[in-house]
Amino acid sequence: MRTFRLTVAYDGTEFHGWQVQPGLRTVQGALEEALDRLPVTERTRVSGAGRTDAGVHARGQVASFSAGTTLPVRALVPLLERHLPDDLRIESAAETSADFHARHSARARHYAYRLLSKRDVLLGRFAWLPRHAPPADALVVATRVLEGEHDCSAFQASGGPPVRPVCRIVRASWSAWEGGWRMDVIADHFLYHMVRNIVGTALAVAAAADPGAAMLEVLASRDRRRAGLTAPACGLTLVQVFYEPGIA
Amino acid sequence: MRTFRLTVAYDGTEFHGWQVQPGLRTVQGALEEALDRLPVTERTRVSGAGRTDAGVHARGQVASFSAGTTLPVRALVPLLERHLPDDLRIESAAETSADFHARHSARARHYAYRLLSKRDVLLGRFAWLPRHAPPADALVVATRVLEGEHDCSAFQASGGPPVRPVCRIVRASWSAWEGGWRMDVIADHFLYHMVRNIVGTALAVAAAADPGAAMLEVLASRDRRRAGLTAPACGLTLVQVFYEPGIA
Repeated sequence: MRTFRLTVAYDGTEFHGWQVQPGLRTVQGALEEALDRLPVTERTRVSGAGRTDAGVHARGQVASFSAGTTLPVRALVPLLERHLPDDLRIESAAETSADFHARHSARARHYAYRLLSKRDVLLGRFAWLPRHAPPADALVVATRVLEGEHDCSAFQASGGPPVRPVCRIVRASWSAWEGGWRMDVIADHFLYHMVRNIVGTALAVAAAADPGAAMLEVLASRDRRRAGLTAPACGLTLVQVFYEPGIA
Repeated sequence: MRTFRLTVAYDGTEFHGWQVQPGLRTVQGALEEALDRLPVTERTRVSGAGRTDAGVHARGQVASFSAGTTLPVRALVPLLERHLPDDLRIESAAETSADFHARHSARARHYAYRLLSKRDVLLGRFAWLPRHAPPADALVVATRVLEGEHDCSAFQASGGPPVRPVCRIVRASWSAWEGGWRMDVIADHFLYHMVRNIVGTALAVAAAADPGAAMLEVLASRDRRRAGLTAPACGLTLVQVFYEPGIA
């Protein structure tokens, strides 16, 4: 058995998320079906660094699997892509050490959430138009206070896998993009729906006299009911996954 | 009969272009079907300022029609949108003078063509990745010479409606966008496939010692066979249509 690492990009619109679900079109399912059409004697499941929800996109999702095959790694991308739909592409493939695991080995993830400043039938495929968009400086102030190590239970939806609630957020910043403003968040790990709940909370507290203080109050409460609504999946993209240098 | 002007945006990916074709999903067809579900006693065809091809997008397409109806114009957008698919939206509606015609009254059109600098499964929906992307400065030089009044027959595909081959191009410029470079062209009118053929020719002449001179040579030949390949429809967007101030 050899172990492989794939960097994967997808338009999440037509996928029911990462994880295999019987009868539904998922990213993991599409990758495993494509693998099963290659000369591979046995294989493990394909693991993803971020188990993205239905509708969430990815530019730099990382997947890993072990398989018995004599295929050269450079043949893997074209052969796999032949069996993948157009909205799921392999950006790169590498053979890696047997102990590499896309999720367990990951040191940090980078997500982006895109807001629209007005309705846009093209950009709306991967961005969200909130009913009331606060000024960008209020959003900046609201999320800057999240940088650091925090118990993020207030932003955790129920229903996700059990994970340590303390996250180390190394960046939570806003910048302009063609359609409006986007938030970039980098953290060691994320709780279920965390980025989308941070966006919803940032929109909710932006009107406060001190959006940063209001955000910290929500955070300190560790109470999901104090946070804002969950922003829709379509605005979210998994941008990149970080590993120890030298790994993979 | 009252006359109306609509500004329309669509993701062209799933449309077989603007013009009604039996059994195919078209923008004109979708608009007319939606109109037929409103309290309208009689109506003309819906005319579009640009008869976009299959796969071409629009942010500011303009459509006009006359109809017998007592509907207030402010009710038109929500009522129509209720019967339109998600990839076709009405940005605004206005009642206009009876002699307004979306195509005949238009004074200029603005198209954008987006190139990708690398493969991108999200942005690739409305941009194109050429096999060899020349440096942007060569593209700038190649198309700048097109500004002015020219017989553009070299960029005209066969099969389009008969139009005057002399076009007044007021802008043909390049700028950076998130995914790479985009060309913006504004002209009084366009020949069939003209923008896509200009892009294909710009890519072809960019490697010449003097890309501007090479482009002018193609233009002067008035020979379609001298021009480059037709760039794919997915990269093209009708951005805006211009009318005389005071019209509509």
